[in-house]
Amino acid sequence: MNVLSVELQAIEHRAYPIYIDQKVLVNQHLWEKIMRSFSAGKQVAIITNPKIAELYLGDLENALANYNVLPILISEGEEHKKLSTMEKVYTDLSEAGFNRSSTLIALGGGVIGDLTGFIAATWMRGVNYIQVPTTLLAQVDSSVGGKTGVNIPQGKNMIGCFYHPRAVMIDLSTLSSLPNREFKAGLSEVIKYGLIYDVDFFEWLVKNIDGLLAQDAQLLAYAVEHSCVIKAEVVAKDEKESGLRAILNLGHTFGHAIETAMGYGEWLHGEAISAGMVYAAKLSQELGWINQAQVDRITELFKRVGLPTSGPKNLTYIEYRDLMFKDKKLRDKGLPLVLLKAIGNAVVSYDYEQSQVKKVLTEVT
Amino acid sequence: MNVLSVELQAIEHRAYPIYIDQKVLVNQHLWEKIMRSFSAGKQVAIITNPKIAELYLGDLENALANYNVLPILISEGEEHKKLSTMEKVYTDLSEAGFNRSSTLIALGGGVIGDLTGFIAATWMRGVNYIQVPTTLLAQVDSSVGGKTGVNIPQGKNMIGCFYHPRAVMIDLSTLSSLPNREFKAGLSEVIKYGLIYDVDFFEWLVKNIDGLLAQDAQLLAYAVEHSCVIKAEVVAKDEKESGLRAILNLGHTFGHAIETAMGYGEWLHGEAISAGMVYAAKLSQELGWINQAQVDRITELFKRVGLPTSGPKNLTYIEYRDLMFKDKKLRDKGLPLVLLKAIGNAVVSYDYEQSQVKKVLTEVT
Repeated sequence: MNVLSVELQAIEHRAYPIYIDQKVLVNQHLWEKIMRSFSAGKQVAIITNPKIAELYLGDLENALANYNVLPILISEGEEHKKLSTMEKVYTDLSEAGFNRSSTLIALGGGVIGDLTGFIAATWMRGVNYIQVPTTLLAQVDSSVGGKTGVNIPQGKNMIGCFYHPRAVMIDLSTLSSLPNREFKAGLSEVIKYGLIYDVDFFEWLVKNIDGLLAQDAQLLAYAVEHSCVIKAEVVAKDEKESGLRAILNLGHTFGHAIETAMGYGEWLHGEAISAGMVYAAKLSQELGWINQAQVDRITELFKRVGLPTSGPKNLTYIEYRDLMFKDKKLRDKGLPLVLLKAIGNAVVSYDYEQSQVKKVLTEVT
Repeated sequence: MNVLSVELQAIEHRAYPIYIDQKVLVNQHLWEKIMRSFSAGKQVAIITNPKIAELYLGDLENALANYNVLPILISEGEEHKKLSTMEKVYTDLSEAGFNRSSTLIALGGGVIGDLTGFIAATWMRGVNYIQVPTTLLAQVDSSVGGKTGVNIPQGKNMIGCFYHPRAVMIDLSTLSSLPNREFKAGLSEVIKYGLIYDVDFFEWLVKNIDGLLAQDAQLLAYAVEHSCVIKAEVVAKDEKESGLRAILNLGHTFGHAIETAMGYGEWLHGEAISAGMVYAAKLSQELGWINQAQVDRITELFKRVGLPTSGPKNLTYIEYRDLMFKDKKLRDKGLPLVLLKAIGNAVVSYDYEQSQVKKVLTEVT
């Protein structure tokens, strides 16, 4: 038998910048610099939704005055993050004669970012794209890390790939137009970074949470930057989610159960994982890893933001169990949950008993 | 302004093996070794078409007796290489509870291989897959190189990504069931490797072409292996097609024009590029790079295989021009064509005049 070996080169670009500031979106000089950094062709598509377009599309088009800009509007909402939306965008790109040197820009929240990233990954086997996240959640979470994808009827984010943007442009001034409830939900992910990775950042948040809620520009810049630093560090260590990256899912298994039970959109993602992180903290306490005072400190911080610290009143343990431990196998073998060894130190663990999960979920708080 | 940098790790697996032999498809020991090499889970889907399934699915299932095998049948033909077919497969995988440790196997020709590779690249952001090409064309071309994708109404292979298999299993005994016309079309790509990269291989082919046409097992093994060696070498040097890899497209611009003009399927790909390679050789002669004797040698080899050495009689220069140089811009700036500096040395060139293309395409031969 003949055996050959196909050797692969390293991936082409090994790093990408995240720019964080007020008004980066309108910084024409910076845009020129970024576009030149990867020899972008003249054709640029801005993928966004009608609401965001009304607020920022004109500004962004002005900043890209030296390019031929094609705006592509996607209806707002998670339900449009699907394959048929991609087909529509592919058609638009084809008809406008886009080629491999064309660039896509995602202007919006997580739905726009995930969808645009996946389109960029697959259009002509990959073109360059830039993330311009306009929600706090997208700024600190989905725009960094290279996860792209869409939903299918069988599940969220089931289809997608890992594909990194050429740059992320975080314009903090876009947060002023974000509904307050969405801003608070975004803070939930910010707090998560302190809990999983950095006790000092957690303490900083405890101290500065009122200023953050008032959207103090300097505090906000620090919180967003530090969140991105942690996410980038975790992602760099484990790009394809084989180990460490899983800690980014603190509170998410509980949270997804709440989101699914209530129907997506009823609870915001950040709200559901806020309750989920409190449950994870309580389960960690059951295991003797953290104490009551630490659980209270965590719970208190979420309360000060105005985030929920327990799930919907009418959701029973059995419902949680069936949603979290979907098939029988998972119940036998155990489901990996992200838990806290300490504030600032999360681990993936199977070391809990089902009875402890039950206790935490049914406790009256 | 704060600027962060996200550093990326190298891709996970840096090389993959190609096994070439008679009966590798039924080699249970080899399958076990390959599956263990990437810690494959128990779930395996074999994606194939009904014709191939009838011939080889049972054998492959036997070789994978230690796995839970889900066969997924795709209707035969290029017209099924599309997004809606992928959706159907995603549904099958969901319903069977496939996860990230599941493995996909592409059993078939180029359509099955491209489609399966793209599904593997995008299902849960990427699972492992193995190519088992059963046509000569797929064995020497599409199964090596990591190009995956589907067609959209606006064009062939417009959607896809680069995603490499964990292994390629080339079972030469499957060629005995290949229709003779398809076998000959596959030889067209084999000859291409000699023309673009290796004059000694070209001379070997001239010497052994009758034995290859008779499917002599040893000659076939050498021809397939050597084709894969050249493809693997070119791909390793230029994985993402920024330069060298383009030489693999010798004859393809002419060939695609023929395929498009005639309607896909009327001329086989290998037949169309056979004529295309002769046109490329003649254009190279116009530029003074190769001589009449070399053009004759090339033409003669294709003729001995029984492949066409010119396009359809009724296809006019104007039709070629409109298909090859689609938009006006390409006609002004020039279209890069793969041409021959010598037999065994192809380059990408803009150094030709439109009048020379016209002469070559209208010459009576």
